[in-house]
Amino acid sequence: MDPGVCALELLRVLFSIGAWICSLATTIMSTWLTLSTDLLPAESYELGLGVLHKIFDEVLLVDVLDSGDAAHLALMKRPDLGVTFTKLHCWTLTHYSKCVFMDADTMVVQNVDELFDREELSAAPDPGWPDCFNSGVFVFRPSNETYGKLLKYCTEHGSFDGGDQGVLNGYFSNWATTDMSKHLPFIYNLRDRNYTYRGIQQYGGNAKVVHFLGQTKPWSYTFDPETKRISGDMQEASTHPTFLLDWWMLYSSSVVPMMTEGYGDQPFHSGCVEGSSASQDPHHTEPYVSPEASEERKQKWEQGQADYMGMDSFDNIQKKLDAFLK
Amino acid sequence: MDPGVCALELLRVLFSIGAWICSLATTIMSTWLTLSTDLLPAESYELGLGVLHKIFDEVLLVDVLDSGDAAHLALMKRPDLGVTFTKLHCWTLTHYSKCVFMDADTMVVQNVDELFDREELSAAPDPGWPDCFNSGVFVFRPSNETYGKLLKYCTEHGSFDGGDQGVLNGYFSNWATTDMSKHLPFIYNLRDRNYTYRGIQQYGGNAKVVHFLGQTKPWSYTFDPETKRISGDMQEASTHPTFLLDWWMLYSSSVVPMMTEGYGDQPFHSGCVEGSSASQDPHHTEPYVSPEASEERKQKWEQGQADYMGMDSFDNIQKKLDAFLK
Repeated sequence: MDPGVCALELLRVLFSIGAWICSLATTIMSTWLTLSTDLLPAESYELGLGVLHKIFDEVLLVDVLDSGDAAHLALMKRPDLGVTFTKLHCWTLTHYSKCVFMDADTMVVQNVDELFDREELSAAPDPGWPDCFNSGVFVFRPSNETYGKLLKYCTEHGSFDGGDQGVLNGYFSNWATTDMSKHLPFIYNLRDRNYTYRGIQQYGGNAKVVHFLGQTKPWSYTFDPETKRISGDMQEASTHPTFLLDWWMLYSSSVVPMMTEGYGDQPFHSGCVEGSSASQDPHHTEPYVSPEASEERKQKWEQGQADYMGMDSFDNIQKKLDAFLK
Repeated sequence: MDPGVCALELLRVLFSIGAWICSLATTIMSTWLTLSTDLLPAESYELGLGVLHKIFDEVLLVDVLDSGDAAHLALMKRPDLGVTFTKLHCWTLTHYSKCVFMDADTMVVQNVDELFDREELSAAPDPGWPDCFNSGVFVFRPSNETYGKLLKYCTEHGSFDGGDQGVLNGYFSNWATTDMSKHLPFIYNLRDRNYTYRGIQQYGGNAKVVHFLGQTKPWSYTFDPETKRISGDMQEASTHPTFLLDWWMLYSSSVVPMMTEGYGDQPFHSGCVEGSSASQDPHHTEPYVSPEASEERKQKWEQGQADYMGMDSFDNIQKKLDAFLK
């Protein structure tokens, strides 16, 4: 990979006026990882940052409110756009020639290095309005000039959806009509829910990046690493359970040990629970472990049902983890 | 318009083994019209055909089971594909050089003649899996050679979704990656429901063709032309009410009078009811008539709410009808 080209991963942040916003993290791994700052305790912020530095090659803090730059001014003019300006900051990363932005509620399930063959602005269609791209995953070229133009566009036109997706689709408005190579296949930004369409059965097995859309995120649940049980209000979520388990397996195996080491004596909430406490949870769900073989898993996937939380899924993840930890 | 180029509109049919299938109808109008054979009484089929001939410039019957051609043989091999073979018949209309196919559950709300500037196979993305096109509206070139290849593809590969959309996306599999000009804007095949995404507020006002997806069709309701009331189980449908009213206004004003004349003494079900009977309907809904002006309608549209069944909508339709009946 071109050394000037780097995988950039942006943490989805809870925007809070006056608060420092931890938002940028970058890493080169065979399996990419995104993390949400929701998972880092605010009361031990410095320790959390230390963990992030262990996980990612580069961690940058973005505080639009305290930045004193053009983004701050833009936010003062358009406070309604909130966290949008934080995301746009990725264009200032001019020490990279090309980047891939990923929301923290995405999960890479296959290597996606080939994304760097694409040009700005490449993104996958948004299923809600497929002439717009979804701004959870996109290829871009950092540039202070583009950054300035984006901020100008923001203050002059606002956002039709109130967020960064509206701004970016407004600015890169020729995405839908001009260059097919800038249309990433849907498997690079696959929504995790509403698997009603049979296309998922035809193409879903090739998923590259899963996007946990909606209000309920993987970290809204709790997880028992021993029994591979996920607990929480599963009714609320129509999240594809395979992807949800994949997320928890990756997080609990790769991140939580670093958090345990990093926080030391400081208490922190990892989202992981002991087997006994999971069974005391009133929302506790049945165990998803099943001993099915991969062939069966594939068959059931193709039938759009079952297997999901199965042991074979665990095995698959284990392989990924082995590759990642090598 | 090139005389060899003609608007082709296909009636969605209820496929019934052994039954004649009335499926093709074509018309040149400033506002196009599609009709479902669900609206034609089976017991007075010939009279219904007479009405279709009044509405459309050309009406063709397709009976795959009795056709004795390659489609019949294909259907015998793959009975699971059912009505799919009926739709594929449109490629045999070789007396036209280029056609636009439209499902009978679509409604053209603005002139779409410019579709004939597109090449085969042009279609809009399917919101369920936006790397596939929705086969409810597409531009194609009739060709016996293509027809033969499609049937061959059908029998060899089947359909990943069990219908024509799977077959056509399989055959025209380079749609997602090759030629942007074959991506019709989403406004040419706009689903009528799930208006949660704000894109509809940004772009929905430019709708060209509305597609009444799902099981509940406009003709599943009843309508009182006098009070402009639509009755039926509205809970089941999340259909955008403006479009639903538009459909009923067009149908009740333009088609029902022809049916009344065509059927004469023969009873038929138009879906239209008298005001009194509508109010006796246990599922009767409140009247949607409102006296709002167009500016207000636009505003409310942009806010993603209200106006829908309003008088101004009625006025708009009236204008369309005037143009159509001229």
